[in-house]
Amino acid sequence: MTVHYLTEKIQGDYQYTIGPNTEPVLSVDPGDTIIIETLDAFGGKIANEQTKPSQVLEFPYVNPLNGPIFITGAEEGDALKVRVRSINPRGPQPRGTTCLFPFFGGLTSTRKNPTLQESLPEIVRKVEITEKEIIWSNHIHFPYDPFIGTIGTSPKIDSINSQTPESHGGNMDLPDVRPGNTIYLPIRAPGGRLFIGDCHATQGDGEVCGVAIEFATETTIEVDLVKSWHIEWPRIENDDFIMSVGSSRPMEDAARIAYMDLISWMEKDYGFDRYEAYLILTQIGRVRLGNMVDPNYTIGTSIKKQYLVPSQK
Amino acid sequence: MTVHYLTEKIQGDYQYTIGPNTEPVLSVDPGDTIIIETLDAFGGKIANEQTKPSQVLEFPYVNPLNGPIFITGAEEGDALKVRVRSINPRGPQPRGTTCLFPFFGGLTSTRKNPTLQESLPEIVRKVEITEKEIIWSNHIHFPYDPFIGTIGTSPKIDSINSQTPESHGGNMDLPDVRPGNTIYLPIRAPGGRLFIGDCHATQGDGEVCGVAIEFATETTIEVDLVKSWHIEWPRIENDDFIMSVGSSRPMEDAARIAYMDLISWMEKDYGFDRYEAYLILTQIGRVRLGNMVDPNYTIGTSIKKQYLVPSQK
Amino acid sequence: MTVHYLTEKIQGDYQYTIGPNTEPVLSVDPGDTIIIETLDAFGGKIANEQTKPSQVLEFPYVNPLNGPIFITGAEEGDALKVRVRSINPRGPQPRGTTCLFPFFGGLTSTRKNPTLQESLPEIVRKVEITEKEIIWSNHIHFPYDPFIGTIGTSPKIDSINSQTPESHGGNMDLPDVRPGNTIYLPIRAPGGRLFIGDCHATQGDGEVCGVAIEFATETTIEVDLVKSWHIEWPRIENDDFIMSVGSSRPMEDAARIAYMDLISWMEKDYGFDRYEAYLILTQIGRVRLGNMVDPNYTIGTSIKKQYLVPSQK
Amino acid sequence: MTVHYLTEKIQGDYQYTIGPNTEPVLSVDPGDTIIIETLDAFGGKIANEQTKPSQVLEFPYVNPLNGPIFITGAEEGDALKVRVRSINPRGPQPRGTTCLFPFFGGLTSTRKNPTLQESLPEIVRKVEITEKEIIWSNHIHFPYDPFIGTIGTSPKIDSINSQTPESHGGNMDLPDVRPGNTIYLPIRAPGGRLFIGDCHATQGDGEVCGVAIEFATETTIEVDLVKSWHIEWPRIENDDFIMSVGSSRPMEDAARIAYMDLISWMEKDYGFDRYEAYLILTQIGRVRLGNMVDPNYTIGTSIKKQYLVPSQK
Repeated sequence: MTVHYLTEKIQGDYQYTIGPNTEPVLSVDPGDTIIIETLDAFGGKIANEQTKPSQVLEFPYVNPLNGPIFITGAEEGDALKVRVRSINPRGPQPRGTTCLFPFFGGLTSTRKNPTLQESLPEIVRKVEITEKEIIWSNHIHFPYDPFIGTIGTSPKIDSINSQTPESHGGNMDLPDVRPGNTIYLPIRAPGGRLFIGDCHATQGDGEVCGVAIEFATETTIEVDLVKSWHIEWPRIENDDFIMSVGSSRPMEDAARIAYMDLISWMEKDYGFDRYEAYLILTQIGRVRLGNMVDPNYTIGTSIKKQYLVPSQK
Repeated sequence: MTVHYLTEKIQGDYQYTIGPNTEPVLSVDPGDTIIIETLDAFGGKIANEQTKPSQVLEFPYVNPLNGPIFITGAEEGDALKVRVRSINPRGPQPRGTTCLFPFFGGLTSTRKNPTLQESLPEIVRKVEITEKEIIWSNHIHFPYDPFIGTIGTSPKIDSINSQTPESHGGNMDLPDVRPGNTIYLPIRAPGGRLFIGDCHATQGDGEVCGVAIEFATETTIEVDLVKSWHIEWPRIENDDFIMSVGSSRPMEDAARIAYMDLISWMEKDYGFDRYEAYLILTQIGRVRLGNMVDPNYTIGTSIKKQYLVPSQK
Repeated sequence: MTVHYLTEKIQGDYQYTIGPNTEPVLSVDPGDTIIIETLDAFGGKIANEQTKPSQVLEFPYVNPLNGPIFITGAEEGDALKVRVRSINPRGPQPRGTTCLFPFFGGLTSTRKNPTLQESLPEIVRKVEITEKEIIWSNHIHFPYDPFIGTIGTSPKIDSINSQTPESHGGNMDLPDVRPGNTIYLPIRAPGGRLFIGDCHATQGDGEVCGVAIEFATETTIEVDLVKSWHIEWPRIENDDFIMSVGSSRPMEDAARIAYMDLISWMEKDYGFDRYEAYLILTQIGRVRLGNMVDPNYTIGTSIKKQYLVPSQK
Repeated sequence: MTVHYLTEKIQGDYQYTIGPNTEPVLSVDPGDTIIIETLDAFGGKIANEQTKPSQVLEFPYVNPLNGPIFITGAEEGDALKVRVRSINPRGPQPRGTTCLFPFFGGLTSTRKNPTLQESLPEIVRKVEITEKEIIWSNHIHFPYDPFIGTIGTSPKIDSINSQTPESHGGNMDLPDVRPGNTIYLPIRAPGGRLFIGDCHATQGDGEVCGVAIEFATETTIEVDLVKSWHIEWPRIENDDFIMSVGSSRPMEDAARIAYMDLISWMEKDYGFDRYEAYLILTQIGRVRLGNMVDPNYTIGTSIKKQYLVPSQK
């Protein structure tokens, strides 16, 4: 059980695609721990509240990622198990950034649903982050509730930009990828090739303006393999629940993917009849909207483990 | 403060549309309490697990509603305030019904997104409901967590069938319309004309198969008016949070409507700058998926009241 | 074969809903001809290019309709056959109106997909219409290519506002409802109850800004019944092709509905195997986008009659 | 003006992604002609009507593409101009293939909008193709109306599988990419890197079952550069019209992208006021649905050149 450090220096150039064509920066064994220095989603370029995001950012060079991390023995048809151990803030205060970026977000027209209307104003808000809270204003403090916004394994042949979530994971912006929880990702390329970055200190459901409290972190994960566990979409687990994750457009299709995968999981690993699983999820399934702003929307559907008891036939 | 009883007998014919063209069954004053005998969504026609839903149900005659209830003094531009006091089960056990109905639900093609595929099997599950729990099986009991599935006021000129949610409320299937919470509905026709029915003993987010634990109830509500409070979409409130509700297709548009309305509420009634509201909701807004199965999908977006403190300028 | 005149005077109050609750203005027999004085979509209120549409229009009072017309002998399960004979312009020049209305149209956020952005400018363009052409400018004349924008029969229990297309027809804005063509509409209420209005002198596919060349007309139709022909969605026919029409959101669902109905039509009335119909439409089906701006989007799918010959088994 | 031959032999391994990471198979100069041996979408693996597509095809290895072709002097910010000269069928009869593939197509649930329903049957239809017609059956012959289904230039950093259309072009399945027409593609990587394949002998609007008449061809194109013409999405032109192409989900967003791009084109290159362009397209714009089956749907919007005369101010 080795502990690896993936510092900014070891990382060198951060990655803007998740795919099979880049050189691993690290090779680890199943069971190893990795401590990763992630950058914020803007690579630190939004220095203060006077910065115009549109003047310092150049698409597609946002969401810089650490990786790829090669996992020894990972083969197509296995699942990568990533346990999130901790996420700690890095860098000088105010460490946190949120902003309005032109034609990006859930309540504006965007490149993917354009209109003739003018853009919203550019606004930057810098905030202090401690390991306890985020200081929004004198009156409002948000609890520190960090998670990994972008995490994924390589697709088989595609290289996907770091803004787009799909079945490989990617920019899901799903708060359940948080310390204490475990995420499973499909392995489709040799070594799995894990990419990780874009941590958020807190985020509301849907990440409606498109920019959570972005920050640089020291994130600790433990990686392992589940051999011959073929999964189609990311899955998350903790002591309390199991969750399936879908990313698509329109949003209902993300929900369909996630609920379908959860039924399949209940059927294959917990012995449910598929229609009983469907009926039970109708009564006590839970839906988390990750993002409503990225090139695909992300939804997680979950069921508490206490209900994972099929009726007897 | 009068208490009215709207029994099955007083109701007589239940309603299948929400609109301005039907005769009120009851006239009440602001501040009055109404105890209502609701039917289940199938009008009690699914008697046992051997029943074929497609043989006993005839669309559009599902979701029978009590009402219209005329509220004295309600005029266009006011809001109707409905506080849900209690929801108690009625009728002989097993009182609860869920089922798969052909070409209805979130994981099947439907009339609105048809395919050439065969329908899923018809399955009926009858369950016992007490005021504490729902007995799904020997091993699984769900907590009793009842709410009103369909509640709405009359549109100005449309009569909308009882299966469809829109800005008037209607078949939202949103679990937050539960005892202890207050829902506000727009008044667009004289007297408001309240319709109510389709209670669920529990329901998961999205009501994925389309049929929650449907049951007949005795539901107690208290109605009041908020004069000259013009609202476009339903709103919900309790001690902890405020929530806006949108119903549309595709699902992202329901989310857009709900978040837009919540920003507007924060701006007009709590003094927020609209862009600060947008940024704050990005960090701590919450999304509830009501239904992903009805002619419009329903989403509620909420913010805790503790955060309703605008930054000072 | 009687000829009826439905003048403005006989119509009296125009209709803003399509439903079962209003009093017929005319009763006709199958085979009869009706000459109808339709108003433009704005009831003539946009008098000149200096008018602000938002100041003279009040939703939902747009798209005024003639009707309901009661057809003797029309019963649920029949189809109403409406042959469009001619559409002639009425009124003083410039008779035609198009405009940008705030938060309405395909390239702006709207009530159903709202954003925080400002509205587009209000612009009115008045144009001369003859029976040959529309004079857009000195340089551009459009051919006169008129059709009926809104035509529908009563739903069974709903009353639907005149802006919304659904399976009853309604505001489809589909250019194929033009002179020489025949449209079939489902009969769901006694007498069918035909509503008609909102003629366009020309319109592009999708009606992208939301307002075609709107004008008042004298429209001549011939109505007939197809007894016991149960159709779910509107259908159109001429010497050259048959077309099925779907209206829904998102747009792909309108396309699904229309292609599904066309396959069903080919199967039941032309003897095709359903999968052969599916394969053939893949090769030579045609799609017309009616509108991308109304509460439901409308798509017509068609096949030329020359291909309506099933392979022999 | 050199003529290049890109035979199967010179191509060697066909490509399954469009991106910047592969080795060019050919380098050409602006103005050169290229004669290309394309494979059918299945790489010829569906040999006869007894073949089960699901047994011979393995995703993502469908839609094999020729390329990448490097164009000398092509730089980011230029546009690649591809004139389609001719498309001739190759190979022994029956040369054409269409089929139903499980969970693929417009009238079935798919990987992106899954349901619990069973798949449709697998059906293969092989047809003879001449340079005049496609022999569907004794009774039905379709005109030979070939086009290029998949054509694109490299994204800046992504490698996109050959089934997905986006702003780089790709699997648009748009019949307007036909002999006589010219397509413009954005250049985002050095040399442009053109990929081409997946020709169809005919196709209906929307390609509803997902598989047109697929065939191997000898396709002749002429390539050229438009220096410093920055385009965001593919554009098509012939003597009669100009067309902009959008690919997205849901389908209305593809339509929005295409109409927005067409307005921008009319504004920048033809001198229109943007709102006049919007109003004119509302009256005489045309919409072609390319596909309703691929990971993004594709729509082309067009205007006849005769109308490209702005009103004078």
